[in-house]
Amino acid sequence: MFTIDHLGIAVKSLASAKAIYEKLGLSVSPEETVEAEKVRLVMVPVGESRLELLEPTCEDSVIARFLAKRGEGLHHVCLRVPDLPAAVARLKQDGVRLVAEEIKIGAGGHRYVFVHPASTGGVLLELVDSAH
Amino acid sequence: MFTIDHLGIAVKSLASAKAIYEKLGLSVSPEETVEAEKVRLVMVPVGESRLELLEPTCEDSVIARFLAKRGEGLHHVCLRVPDLPAAVARLKQDGVRLVAEEIKIGAGGHRYVFVHPASTGGVLLELVDSAH
Repeated sequence: MFTIDHLGIAVKSLASAKAIYEKLGLSVSPEETVEAEKVRLVMVPVGESRLELLEPTCEDSVIARFLAKRGEGLHHVCLRVPDLPAAVARLKQDGVRLVAEEIKIGAGGHRYVFVHPASTGGVLLELVDSAH
Repeated sequence: MFTIDHLGIAVKSLASAKAIYEKLGLSVSPEETVEAEKVRLVMVPVGESRLELLEPTCEDSVIARFLAKRGEGLHHVCLRVPDLPAAVARLKQDGVRLVAEEIKIGAGGHRYVFVHPASTGGVLLELVDSAH
């Protein structure tokens, strides 16, 4: 089963970016800091998906560099796929460009890989395993 | 009930942008042209949402101008909201910037409004009525 797991959105200020979603009547999670990623974030559940608003905690955060280069906006789209190792093997066989060649293990043990925007129509595409 | 209805992604070439989704095992709709919008598009259903890949059919298409300015990537996020007129009234009351002040009627009779990226953390946000 494929789903959009979440959209990662780079913002300068969580407080101002989350307001629109609260005004729409969506629930917004409390702010949490992920030290390893140098971001502060809130999650906004939308149906089976989530919006993930990401504010950098320091200037050498990946999100800070994205904001400096591109400004606020969508940072990545995360799709949940039925069989991540099989999907990655197929993409590599077809010469699709991945950000890193191997599947990584993230917080909470979830497995993920990023597909480079050059292969997706300009969207940084994260794939996670729906088995998790 | 809120859902992500679709993500609109501006691409230079449908043929090359859709390949990654086919390789992942997603089904991609046949190409269709929407003359009024000056775009050719395919839809990629993903769970309760869809990815909408948009290729301009001529240089004065909104999508062509977007590509010239920003390059390929996410053009808009469309959320399905429970009560569109109430949501729009609430946003206007709170001073949220809309692209046009009134709800419009699109193809197939669906009602929609766009919220300006300045109010959403850099994302052009389309709202549609889940009653439709």
